[in-house]
Amino acid sequence: MTLALSRPTARLGAAVALSCRECGTRTEVGPQYACPECFGPLEVAYEWTLRGEELRREIESGPENIWRYAALLPVPADVAATPNMNPGRTKLVRADNLARELGMGNLWVKDDSGNPTHSFKDRVVAVALAAARELGFQVLACPSTGNLANAVAAAAARAGIRSVVFVPRTLEQQKILTTAAYGGTLVAVDGSYDDINRLAGQIAAEREDWAFVNVNVRPFYAEGSKTLGYEVAEQLGWRLPRQVVIPVASGAQLTKVDKGFRELVELGLVDDASYSVFGAQATGCSPVSTAFKQGWDTVRPVKADTIAKSLAIGNPADGPYVLDTVNRTGGAVEDVSDDEVVDGIRLLARTEGIFAETAGGVTVSVLRKLLAAGRLDPDADTVLFNTGDGLKTLDAIAGSVGPSATIPPTLEAFEATGLAG
Amino acid sequence: MTLALSRPTARLGAAVALSCRECGTRTEVGPQYACPECFGPLEVAYEWTLRGEELRREIESGPENIWRYAALLPVPADVAATPNMNPGRTKLVRADNLARELGMGNLWVKDDSGNPTHSFKDRVVAVALAAARELGFQVLACPSTGNLANAVAAAAARAGIRSVVFVPRTLEQQKILTTAAYGGTLVAVDGSYDDINRLAGQIAAEREDWAFVNVNVRPFYAEGSKTLGYEVAEQLGWRLPRQVVIPVASGAQLTKVDKGFRELVELGLVDDASYSVFGAQATGCSPVSTAFKQGWDTVRPVKADTIAKSLAIGNPADGPYVLDTVNRTGGAVEDVSDDEVVDGIRLLARTEGIFAETAGGVTVSVLRKLLAAGRLDPDADTVLFNTGDGLKTLDAIAGSVGPSATIPPTLEAFEATGLAG
Ligand SMILES: Cc1ncc(COP(=O)(O)O)c(C=O)c1O
Ligand SMILES: Cc1ncc(COP(=O)(O)O)c(C=O)c1O
Ligand SMILES: [Zn+2]
Ligand SMILES: [Zn+2]
Repeated sequence: MTLALSRPTARLGAAVALSCRECGTRTEVGPQYACPECFGPLEVAYEWTLRGEELRREIESGPENIWRYAALLPVPADVAATPNMNPGRTKLVRADNLARELGMGNLWVKDDSGNPTHSFKDRVVAVALAAARELGFQVLACPSTGNLANAVAAAAARAGIRSVVFVPRTLEQQKILTTAAYGGTLVAVDGSYDDINRLAGQIAAEREDWAFVNVNVRPFYAEGSKTLGYEVAEQLGWRLPRQVVIPVASGAQLTKVDKGFRELVELGLVDDASYSVFGAQATGCSPVSTAFKQGWDTVRPVKADTIAKSLAIGNPADGPYVLDTVNRTGGAVEDVSDDEVVDGIRLLARTEGIFAETAGGVTVSVLRKLLAAGRLDPDADTVLFNTGDGLKTLDAIAGSVGPSATIPPTLEAFEATGLAG
Repeated sequence: MTLALSRPTARLGAAVALSCRECGTRTEVGPQYACPECFGPLEVAYEWTLRGEELRREIESGPENIWRYAALLPVPADVAATPNMNPGRTKLVRADNLARELGMGNLWVKDDSGNPTHSFKDRVVAVALAAARELGFQVLACPSTGNLANAVAAAAARAGIRSVVFVPRTLEQQKILTTAAYGGTLVAVDGSYDDINRLAGQIAAEREDWAFVNVNVRPFYAEGSKTLGYEVAEQLGWRLPRQVVIPVASGAQLTKVDKGFRELVELGLVDDASYSVFGAQATGCSPVSTAFKQGWDTVRPVKADTIAKSLAIGNPADGPYVLDTVNRTGGAVEDVSDDEVVDGIRLLARTEGIFAETAGGVTVSVLRKLLAAGRLDPDADTVLFNTGDGLKTLDAIAGSVGPSATIPPTLEAFEATGLAG
């Protein structure tokens, strides 16, 4: 909540204030993240400078990355020219094979494994980095369940600044080694993500020039996920899908996709059609799903135990807002077992050639479960979010897939396998 | 060489013949891959239907994937509408940090790790798949050093056809498990890639409806790599770079990037500026580099022994053509040790936030070695090809990178590390 670094003239585009999600109090755009009145979380408020056709033309003539939406983000106008990872504009894949297996009509996969470090976290980090630079921070930091660590370390390398990343020591080797390869400071912590998140808050309070992207720069960081919503709408030909299914850890992504959709309506870029937002969790860490099913409006922290480590946040900062969003839009939050996570990974890979990480497996299996329960309309246009990459969570499938046969290099040996068909 | 499946009216765009790279004999477009006169390798010949401004407009208004260049590929006109992975249009990253470390002026990385299965192999497979379907094949197959296995299995899943993939059993677990996840037939073989390649040739002769993408459909497959050349030129604003550095296994990619450049000149899309093509190998499998240094015009097969497994082809089909290309353009082929491969991976990750596989490490370190030897002009516009992803070859760096510290989740513990700075 330090104001020391705030530049009075921070050039953050159309962002005009930070506003409290609890009490609505407005503060100036700066390195604040908690409401000075009620300590509620702050989010970015805008005064749009472009709308409708004019905005659409600006977007469509923009670069093939998230900066085509720069006018809708808290970033300086020249952001596309700064050294950054230029994430976004990942593929929206028509998933006809998967739809057939699930008995659905129109299904797409928004495949964010195509981002530079292969998760949607490149989006939020790019926005956080741009804002952090403008606000005068010197170091890019984060507590992470893995993907964010990769994204922060890579973005800092590209930008030529220091990164300091904190991860649970029990994280997948893939995410640890990749982060280390980018050459920043990587601290493995004996504890859960929630422990590390707390530690990050303490360090942030001490180090004024460290931007913990998802802690003290969180209002800016979170806005990056709006671009997932913008892209889906643009890739569908400027319209909203009827249903979206999104994995939930802290819940920021889900709430920001919804915010993105609402902004597009407000800005006159899409028709005001109704849509439903569905959240996906692993049963081993399902505080938001539990709260949804119980009809609570707050989320009770849990101890996480699931192979979906990227989603293992037991005390999700945006949990209550996920409940709001899902309830407002007529969606739901559902959770699936670790076995179902593996099944989901394999189903998506086998039908669409998309190899997702555990978070994607969660989302696929939640989609299937919601369909089976009749909570999701099989005939309505649906977008499933694949937010990460299977190469980072190989252990999840190592026990269940492998070569069909191992043979010496001879024709006879191959014929003998019976695989020649 | 079977003609049985050849359809007289195969709709393969501007492709009008297959022509022998050795003797120039022309045969009709079909599932041939060896010259009926001299058994030399065949390549696709075209009669262009579009040129100059008209072609440029067609390309620029095309999709954000390799199909924007469909008019220059042996694929049906409606290829973009068929179920495929839609690879390509990966980032051309301005690598100012790396350039600075290397003492260079203008350096870019063409980062093909952004493809759907994270290597340039998605390009060649997409073209092979499109041609194979048109030619009546039913199964997509390949011998592979790993990345091709991933690309074939994923593309077949998306297309809804069977895949049969052969890999050395000693391949990286990442490449084996990923391939298996896509659900096709995966055969691990006790032998080198060269053994497996031979086996694939034998099986292809027996199974008329199996398209081994890099064996009996190789003329079409190889054309896919031209798109790397097209994209680099288009991303530079329709001009050729002065120098390119490209990893070499079979050598197909390097020769086809060159072919792509020459076609752009012929078609009036870029000025006829001179450029030099450099090839990169690992010392543990450097038959083309050896031949180049010895001044041979053929390549003597070697037994491969390197951590750069994706480049471990001891008997490279396009080796002699690599030598032709490099000699004609004033380039060179160079090789680096496995330790230098690891250094190259780390250098690229640390400076640009791009985490390459071993093949990329080879290419970075060859660039450095060529600069040191004065064989490559540090001041000329240079493009380095990163063709694969570090997540697939983690073992290469596992011994040399890791967390900076491991701590309990307390502020004191963090301060005690001395990392707080
Ligand atoms: C792959 C993946 N998907 C989804 C999420 C959830 O994001 P959020 O914390 O915004 O809910 C994460 C968070 O780390 C993630 O890594
Ligand atoms: C990552 C990567 N780069 C480069 C190559 C070399 O390609 P080529 O066989 O066309 O020389 C390969 C081949 O497998 C590869 O996997
Ligand atoms: Zn408040
Ligand atoms: Zn011939």
